[in-house]
Amino acid sequence: MPTLFTKIINGEIPAYKVAENDEFLAFLDINPNSKGHTLCIPKKEVNKLFDLDEETYDKLMKFSRKVALALRKTIPCKRIGMAVVGLEVPHVHVHLIPLHEMDDMRFERKVKVSDEEMEELSQRIQANLS
Amino acid sequence: MPTLFTKIINGEIPAYKVAENDEFLAFLDINPNSKGHTLCIPKKEVNKLFDLDEETYDKLMKFSRKVALALRKTIPCKRIGMAVVGLEVPHVHVHLIPLHEMDDMRFERKVKVSDEEMEELSQRIQANLS
Repeated sequence: MPTLFTKIINGEIPAYKVAENDEFLAFLDINPNSKGHTLCIPKKEVNKLFDLDEETYDKLMKFSRKVALALRKTIPCKRIGMAVVGLEVPHVHVHLIPLHEMDDMRFERKVKVSDEEMEELSQRIQANLS
Repeated sequence: MPTLFTKIINGEIPAYKVAENDEFLAFLDINPNSKGHTLCIPKKEVNKLFDLDEETYDKLMKFSRKVALALRKTIPCKRIGMAVVGLEVPHVHVHLIPLHEMDDMRFERKVKVSDEEMEELSQRIQANLS
């Protein structure tokens, strides 16, 4: 069974995409810890971060850095937090989270962002990619 | 003022070290989320992850991967979680956390590990570095 994220990659489930290349995709988390919370994933379906081969891991980290730099240009915040957990969706995903306070990292308190704002955010982050 | 971590690098504050090279250091978190919780830091004192130059960032991520692979050989767990937050100590640090459940990622619940066990853990992780 393809993961939720593979369905997003294949276009079977819509997503607010912010960056994409042949191997990786970044899109807004639909249930964000804070506004701008973004997920970076390899298109290759691998469950655990440290099961990725070294080359794919290195490239995923580079890709995530580029997205994080665009994110911090877009969202006023103290800094961009990074987390890889993966206890829910068995497909590697790097969380990039604009941080205002520690609670933004805890995955407990979620924020509501309207569809219109998600669309607008994803376009602004895209525009800030260099 | 040097950060707490720079004092560890300089040997002014003791730490249970697990890996070290010219540019990076890994040691056990003294107030761990779970047993084996490890911090990977650049010796260069930079506050924010995404302010590191690209080369140092890439190398820190590679170094963290090596430590994570040793960690998962040492500590039975579901997977190794990764987090970079940095709202407390202004010196980049990658948290590597053996995960048993989501609460291990929240930085709220801490575990007590004796000095003897910290020492023994750091030696076992070191021995599993390849």
